Amino acid sequence: MQKVLITGAAGRIGRTLRAGLKDRCDLRLMDRKPIDDAEVDDVHVGDVADVEWMAAVCQGVDAVVHLAGDPSTGAPWESVLEVNIKGTYGAYEGARRAGAQRLVFASSNHATGFYEQEGVYTTPEMPVRPDSLYGVSKSFGEDLARFYVDQHGMKAYCLRIGSFQPDSAVENRQSDRILSTWLSYRDTVQLVWRCLQVESVDFGIYYGISGNERAYWDTENARRDLGYAPEDDAERFA
Amino acid sequence: MQKVLITGAAGRIGRTLRAGLKDRCDLRLMDRKPIDDAEVDDVHVGDVADVEWMAAVCQGVDAVVHLAGDPSTGAPWESVLEVNIKGTYGAYEGARRAGAQRLVFASSNHATGFYEQEGVYTTPEMPVRPDSLYGVSKSFGEDLARFYVDQHGMKAYCLRIGSFQPDSAVENRQSDRILSTWLSYRDTVQLVWRCLQVESVDFGIYYGISGNERAYWDTENARRDLGYAPEDDAERFA
Repeated sequence: MQKVLITGAAGRIGRTLRAGLKDRCDLRLMDRKPIDDAEVDDVHVGDVADVEWMAAVCQGVDAVVHLAGDPSTGAPWESVLEVNIKGTYGAYEGARRAGAQRLVFASSNHATGFYEQEGVYTTPEMPVRPDSLYGVSKSFGEDLARFYVDQHGMKAYCLRIGSFQPDSAVENRQSDRILSTWLSYRDTVQLVWRCLQVESVDFGIYYGISGNERAYWDTENARRDLGYAPEDDAERFA
Repeated sequence: MQKVLITGAAGRIGRTLRAGLKDRCDLRLMDRKPIDDAEVDDVHVGDVADVEWMAAVCQGVDAVVHLAGDPSTGAPWESVLEVNIKGTYGAYEGARRAGAQRLVFASSNHATGFYEQEGVYTTPEMPVRPDSLYGVSKSFGEDLARFYVDQHGMKAYCLRIGSFQPDSAVENRQSDRILSTWLSYRDTVQLVWRCLQVESVDFGIYYGISGNERAYWDTENARRDLGYAPEDDAERFA
């Protein structure tokens, strides 16, 4: 079993991954706040931007799933800088110093949000067009991941997560956008699991969405590189 | 005449631009240290990462040529973060708050340096492959510039500067790399001047090199978008 550290493990995506991966990985959890319902005892509470501390937390870890960050698209610069930019450097550099080989980064569709605003079908190869400082911090995390792969021989997989929501949120949707952008809980687990398993590619940027009929973000490279085979399609709630 | 603020005006590129632009622009100069040989009295000494202060310095300015930053490819994270990341945000956000419309950003070929290491001919459309934390900070500056254009209706031009050197450095070169990567002083001035004049495009990323016969970075978009017509070619020193 791989030893896998999840940063931001107390969050919504963290909780879903903990449940979905606990029988397939030896989990270590990290967050800035305590995790009340942790599946394991191996829990670390602290600041992801503290590189020294993160290097200690990463000891013995094979892979880091980096979720920690300010998740708000409206986050002000101060928070984006401290939590998303300094925190992502802390997670990657801590992983590197500890000898972890693999990174999975929770990037975001907001790294390319202006294409969506203009109605442009988007592939991961297109230049970024962040729609927020939050989106800029996510493209920063992708570029930094690429550097760790090229410079330090690590593997890194960046997932531009769409609308991470339970089935009920699609069913009771306020807007039809989610029919295009949904990422179901089980597809999230599958996608991260495949990033933890893949050996054929060292780096990739992938849109993290279910197999939505109305998708306007291209997932072909996730299917090709990772073998991602989404089980859900928001269309069944349409 | 446009009112143009140059950040990092005391540096090597700053000095060249001051001399080359002083008769064509109404210059304002900014640096963290005093500028002994300033062409104008309108000089401001302070910290580019201080947004409030930068907003004051940008009052009445039409364009900001943002050169300030740690120029070392070996710069450690702390310096990259403070000077290049926080400083670039400070410059852009200060410009925006003051109503400046146009940004010219001194990016770097090191945003895509791993293509060069692998001998790959590179165009500005290719995904970044930074070769250093410095290079990551430059791709950050490009992505942030794109955001300011899309979100705030500004114009921004990112120049991935090659080897900015006098003729003598090409003539007395230690390595032939500079025959491919050279950017002469007068081509630097021309390129920035054209970025200050262009109206037909709002955003672009351009390799900043002279018309070198041995170039492996594509300058076609600079010629097309900006009308850049380099006067120099390192080959005459070959």
